[in-house]
Amino acid sequence: MREQLLAAERIVPLEWKPGVLRLLDQRLLPLQQHWIECRDAEQAAAAIRDMVVRGAPAIGIAAAYGVVLAARQHFLHNQHNWRSALRTDMQLLAASRPTAVNLFWALEQMQQRLDNLQPDRCPLQQLESAAVAIHQADREANLAMAQLGMDIIQRYCDAPQHLLTHCNAGALATGGFGTALGVIRAAHLAGLVAHVHADETRPWLQGSRLTAWELAQEGIAVSVNADSSAAHLLREGDITWVIVGADRITANGDVANKIGTYSLAVLARHHDVRLMVVAPGSTIDMQLQSGADIPIEQRSADELLRVAGQPVTTELPAFNPVFDVTPACLVDVIVTERGVVEQPDADKMRLLMAAGALH
Amino acid sequence: MREQLLAAERIVPLEWKPGVLRLLDQRLLPLQQHWIECRDAEQAAAAIRDMVVRGAPAIGIAAAYGVVLAARQHFLHNQHNWRSALRTDMQLLAASRPTAVNLFWALEQMQQRLDNLQPDRCPLQQLESAAVAIHQADREANLAMAQLGMDIIQRYCDAPQHLLTHCNAGALATGGFGTALGVIRAAHLAGLVAHVHADETRPWLQGSRLTAWELAQEGIAVSVNADSSAAHLLREGDITWVIVGADRITANGDVANKIGTYSLAVLARHHDVRLMVVAPGSTIDMQLQSGADIPIEQRSADELLRVAGQPVTTELPAFNPVFDVTPACLVDVIVTERGVVEQPDADKMRLLMAAGALH
Repeated sequence: MREQLLAAERIVPLEWKPGVLRLLDQRLLPLQQHWIECRDAEQAAAAIRDMVVRGAPAIGIAAAYGVVLAARQHFLHNQHNWRSALRTDMQLLAASRPTAVNLFWALEQMQQRLDNLQPDRCPLQQLESAAVAIHQADREANLAMAQLGMDIIQRYCDAPQHLLTHCNAGALATGGFGTALGVIRAAHLAGLVAHVHADETRPWLQGSRLTAWELAQEGIAVSVNADSSAAHLLREGDITWVIVGADRITANGDVANKIGTYSLAVLARHHDVRLMVVAPGSTIDMQLQSGADIPIEQRSADELLRVAGQPVTTELPAFNPVFDVTPACLVDVIVTERGVVEQPDADKMRLLMAAGALH
Repeated sequence: MREQLLAAERIVPLEWKPGVLRLLDQRLLPLQQHWIECRDAEQAAAAIRDMVVRGAPAIGIAAAYGVVLAARQHFLHNQHNWRSALRTDMQLLAASRPTAVNLFWALEQMQQRLDNLQPDRCPLQQLESAAVAIHQADREANLAMAQLGMDIIQRYCDAPQHLLTHCNAGALATGGFGTALGVIRAAHLAGLVAHVHADETRPWLQGSRLTAWELAQEGIAVSVNADSSAAHLLREGDITWVIVGADRITANGDVANKIGTYSLAVLARHHDVRLMVVAPGSTIDMQLQSGADIPIEQRSADELLRVAGQPVTTELPAFNPVFDVTPACLVDVIVTERGVVEQPDADKMRLLMAAGALH
């Protein structure tokens, strides 16, 4: 499966070249393929905040490279006080978005490397290696999760089936292959996918712009539907699994993910359809007891009231929370690279995370 | 309440002048207020099919006037064979949209008048009177339902509260005041509305373009939200009622309405929030046993893949059912001008409809 996934890889939305982080602008996809180059932490933070790059794992990777960019800039400028300037830049990166914990996890990884620099090697090279390792580990985690998630799908039904996904938890959201879409890709390669239904995912349309585009490029049968038609699909269709990614999973197994995921979770349970959450260990935040503790980002009303820069209605108040929290009791299985957790709860999550150092 | 509602009326989306049906183009609202004039049945059918006019009761009214336009055209052209040409035009009107039963109900009303024309009066005047009566009766029905629905809200909670609505069941969807929004307007006048949450309602955005605009114009506190955030709102907010219109209600109390209504019904029940469906008797189809018999309109993929004429993604398959069916067991109350039905079922619906001739 690993070799098949590697061979089928088409989409690489993030490239690192020493001194430059190149990001495929996901706001313009798929109609335009435009790359943005970040050369300092401020540019990287802006790219995260403004959604040039999105998806919890990809945000973490971009932030790690942002630290390397900042370190290069400050180290070359002032070899004595570069750490102080770097600290400010890391705070800037941390403030870019609040909900996805992978951002803070990646910054913490970089901080640990910074705190443990080997004196006989160039600090910049050591930080760059750390960022590349985060990036590579995410790719490997996705490959592992793809296999684990596919195994579970096969365990319940070894025939082509209909799957429903929300937002984009694909190659574009990660270091490669995707979390939820990694599982779907593997299931497709194993002959388990008849059709993928992609919620369009308002307001940013990650489903119709990113997910459906990713899958169609690989010849996976996909169609886009309005988010609100998911209930109708779950009743009328032959959907066996709702498969989504996550932005933060708390110690009890609660899952923060793109707004609409909680809605799908309730609807899936009502229709006896299983819900699979696919996310690397870097998404799991054992510091928070439950989803009630997760900060939920509210974004601008304009995201709802404008499409492609054009207003669709008059100036009106809008409520635009971009994540919601699905309680663990509505999740059938959490798939991580460390293993899977069925019917997650605090004990099972503790066992999963105690099974050895992450990555 | 009737006088207050009449005094507060701002929005009149449909005007009849002998020989001309004027329709406010609802595809362009609220950014442009453009009127379209229909002078024959073909133009009226196109306006219904292309969603210049939408909303089950408004479609019925437009079709009734469409019959008058057709009759004028053919009667003035050929006083001997005008009925045959009119029959063809009525079939054209009937074929314009499949789900809202008000269309067929209004055409049936017009057919009955046609079958019982008084020989000593001008047939055109008689048909025009019939269409005007359908229009006026719908306005009166909405005024009656506004009071009945408001009474129910007040019965459960006599304080300002948060309401959630979907699509547009307002003045724009009816002969005036609205069905669901008629109740919300009356509740506002009675001091029962703290805030209205309007689902934006993809793909046509009737919520953000029409509902929020209607309510804001009357100073009712409203905000727009993505459809998929309704579950989050129902859990986090203080919503007491989900209030929607209907396109067809079957003999057992099942309700076809805008795609997403069924989703809201499941979510409302999950969160112990009540669901009110507001629709005139012309929406009730006692010929169909259950919602499984209702034809569900599928519209073009373009409605999902383009916004304001501009593509938002590449050419992709899309699944675009524009209605769904909510089973009666998820409906707390159906409000009609004939009375209210709590926990609807076939027996209660039969009693409601047996209570006298409709309109």
